[in-house]
Amino acid sequence: MTSIDQYIHVNLQKAIDETIRLCAQPSVSATGQGVRECAALTAEILKGHGLEVQSFETKGNPILVGRASGKSPRTLLFYNHYDVQPPEPLELWTSPPFEPALRDGALYARGVSDDKGELIARLFALEAVRAAHGGELPCGATFVVEGEEEVSSPTIAGFVRQHLDLLACHAAIWEVGGVDLEGKPGTTLGARGILDVELSVESMSMDAHSGNAHALPSAAWRLLRVLASLKDENERILIPGWYDACLPHSARDLELLAAQPDHEAYTRQQFGIERFLNGLTGMELKKSVFNPTCNIQGITTGYQGPGAKTIVPAKASAKLDFRLVPEQDPDGMYAKLCVYLVEQGFGDVQVQRIGSMEPYKSDADHPFFQLSARLALEVYSKELQMGPLASGSSPIYAFTGPLGDIPVLWAGVGGPNGRAHSPDENIVIENFVNGTRYLARILDEFGTI
Amino acid sequence: MTSIDQYIHVNLQKAIDETIRLCAQPSVSATGQGVRECAALTAEILKGHGLEVQSFETKGNPILVGRASGKSPRTLLFYNHYDVQPPEPLELWTSPPFEPALRDGALYARGVSDDKGELIARLFALEAVRAAHGGELPCGATFVVEGEEEVSSPTIAGFVRQHLDLLACHAAIWEVGGVDLEGKPGTTLGARGILDVELSVESMSMDAHSGNAHALPSAAWRLLRVLASLKDENERILIPGWYDACLPHSARDLELLAAQPDHEAYTRQQFGIERFLNGLTGMELKKSVFNPTCNIQGITTGYQGPGAKTIVPAKASAKLDFRLVPEQDPDGMYAKLCVYLVEQGFGDVQVQRIGSMEPYKSDADHPFFQLSARLALEVYSKELQMGPLASGSSPIYAFTGPLGDIPVLWAGVGGPNGRAHSPDENIVIENFVNGTRYLARILDEFGTI
Repeated sequence: MTSIDQYIHVNLQKAIDETIRLCAQPSVSATGQGVRECAALTAEILKGHGLEVQSFETKGNPILVGRASGKSPRTLLFYNHYDVQPPEPLELWTSPPFEPALRDGALYARGVSDDKGELIARLFALEAVRAAHGGELPCGATFVVEGEEEVSSPTIAGFVRQHLDLLACHAAIWEVGGVDLEGKPGTTLGARGILDVELSVESMSMDAHSGNAHALPSAAWRLLRVLASLKDENERILIPGWYDACLPHSARDLELLAAQPDHEAYTRQQFGIERFLNGLTGMELKKSVFNPTCNIQGITTGYQGPGAKTIVPAKASAKLDFRLVPEQDPDGMYAKLCVYLVEQGFGDVQVQRIGSMEPYKSDADHPFFQLSARLALEVYSKELQMGPLASGSSPIYAFTGPLGDIPVLWAGVGGPNGRAHSPDENIVIENFVNGTRYLARILDEFGTI
Repeated sequence: MTSIDQYIHVNLQKAIDETIRLCAQPSVSATGQGVRECAALTAEILKGHGLEVQSFETKGNPILVGRASGKSPRTLLFYNHYDVQPPEPLELWTSPPFEPALRDGALYARGVSDDKGELIARLFALEAVRAAHGGELPCGATFVVEGEEEVSSPTIAGFVRQHLDLLACHAAIWEVGGVDLEGKPGTTLGARGILDVELSVESMSMDAHSGNAHALPSAAWRLLRVLASLKDENERILIPGWYDACLPHSARDLELLAAQPDHEAYTRQQFGIERFLNGLTGMELKKSVFNPTCNIQGITTGYQGPGAKTIVPAKASAKLDFRLVPEQDPDGMYAKLCVYLVEQGFGDVQVQRIGSMEPYKSDADHPFFQLSARLALEVYSKELQMGPLASGSSPIYAFTGPLGDIPVLWAGVGGPNGRAHSPDENIVIENFVNGTRYLARILDEFGTI
């Protein structure tokens, strides 16, 4: 056993106690419950681990930055958040959400998995590495802990752009991580971006009796024509230039995709489907994560109650999200959409931009991932699973680009049944230990690559 | 002044008092309030006018039939209903809805215009004609008064089919009638039918994260493809055979359409539109009432709240109404729709039939309309406006076909500001008098044609 591992085993209870203390403080960003108190407590905990802490006021909740320098000038950044999801429905919790409880080798509390337990594990890893080096850190460490992640992080991207010097680093570890059902650690190397828009049509000043459907313009039909113009029946987006910036799959992407586990049967069963879209299967299905999408989140028009209501709707709207792949940028894609609608004769359509995130993609062969893969194998005796591109979107782009194309790793203490956002959220203590060991090793060696 | 007119003028207050008595009795079929009591009161009033009354129990509210024979074997049927719309919102009434109030030459009450005042005017006309003929009626009269008109008359069509002998007649007068803004009396000679359906798609057993939009089937997109397959961009319905049964416009139809007033500017202003569908105007717009329609009443799918929700919807549904023109029959059209969807590869779409009404069309040159036109001119000094086909739908078809293609006239005591279904529903006493005079003349001469 290494001295780092030994430290972790000997001091485990202290780390668990600190996790319990942090989780006992509510911090529900959706309602504001306990958020300020939790920011203060988190700052105190960061300081207690020898970090120099600054608390920045924002339009929303404070953003905390804790820094420590190390022997190497290389710095590793950790992103976490101190806010949590609302605990409701309370009756589905075995023990109260803000009274952390240990049972059957796991710690239960709202936020323990997402991601207060993750934050404490990282600080615990820092402590173990410091102890192994006589109080000194082998590399610099910067902790960014925000308080609005559970309400879509409206502030963090602007904050990063305004604090490039303070946050300068050479790699980052994202908020959570851990192992899958088979005990394999994993990370993604990138994520798709997203452009959320709402398209609205108003064809008349009020709904009309549907006896007038031969003569009066229907917003429902108009919206339907607009939507149908966006994508063909083979899922190809019809907006000119939409695919111009898309990068082709690299040989390495294909290799990583091929190594991904086969979840087809599980997913088909989960969603009760016989086949995937367009009959995709095997590598074609895996590769389709590199396709941009045009998804309808919802459509609202006319009468939606029981029975019939004989109206021609005057208003119709649809919420859409376009998932963007590297190197599609949301601003450019939004402009293309707007121009296309006008050119198609849909200049009457209102396009409201609701939000967006940029795609990002790290280089799978970056030494940081090589290091992480080697250390993961050491801790877990299993290969690090590396997905080339997550299908969802992530505010990671807010760090990667502005901070100089830094590689970003997902590593931590989670497991497949962590129930983040759900009642009985938990972390398994064994995963907490192994995640801390993995994180400590990364801190230990990061200065050397 | 004829003896009929004289009778009406002399006995007006009695008829108004009877209207007040009937309107003071609530009869809200949507809630059931007072419906049974009103059925009993209506039967009593019918009997009081010398009719032989039968009250038929149905699955819903009683249907009353009151009959009187006349000198001629020819019989005129009157259709009315004793139920009314809910009176809410109460705060918008100047006087309480079930406390009938006379002011400024009009009588205000819920149901007075739609159509208790109409019923009393018809009974008053009957009385005047009887008085003018020494107690005898010149023709037979049958009153059908139902109690579910305001909840879509679920019972009446079946009732008519089961009582063909009882209801046998040579022409009918529909529930309401009256004059337009220019004081002109009007009727329609037909109405389009309607087929109400709901199309539903379930693409998965639950909504999915929209990061899966490249691989999982969206019910929203599926429904959109289904709907787009129903109609082209020029409003032409694409279901094979949809237009097969449609009758061409007759020369008489075109003549009647040409005589219709031009409401284009008014309608454009009312709905805030610059142009009608497909740029229709003039005779082309008027003729388009003879087009079948495929209207979307509403679409429900996915997330419809504020902001964004990144889901692929598992369910989507749309309510549609198809307006049918003579001689399209709802059953046949429903079958064509179902077959088409399957043939287009949309066999996964659930088609729920919500309801339907058949189209009907009377012969504009029937002697009954010639008589009505002559008498309308006598009473109103204005030509009877005859529309060849109403754009909406009506349960009139439930009478016309089964009773032997009888002609059906709209004639009564309404005016352009009767506010049916709205607060301050009313009838203008002058219209009540003239409507009664017109109805009495029709009763007086109907036996002779």
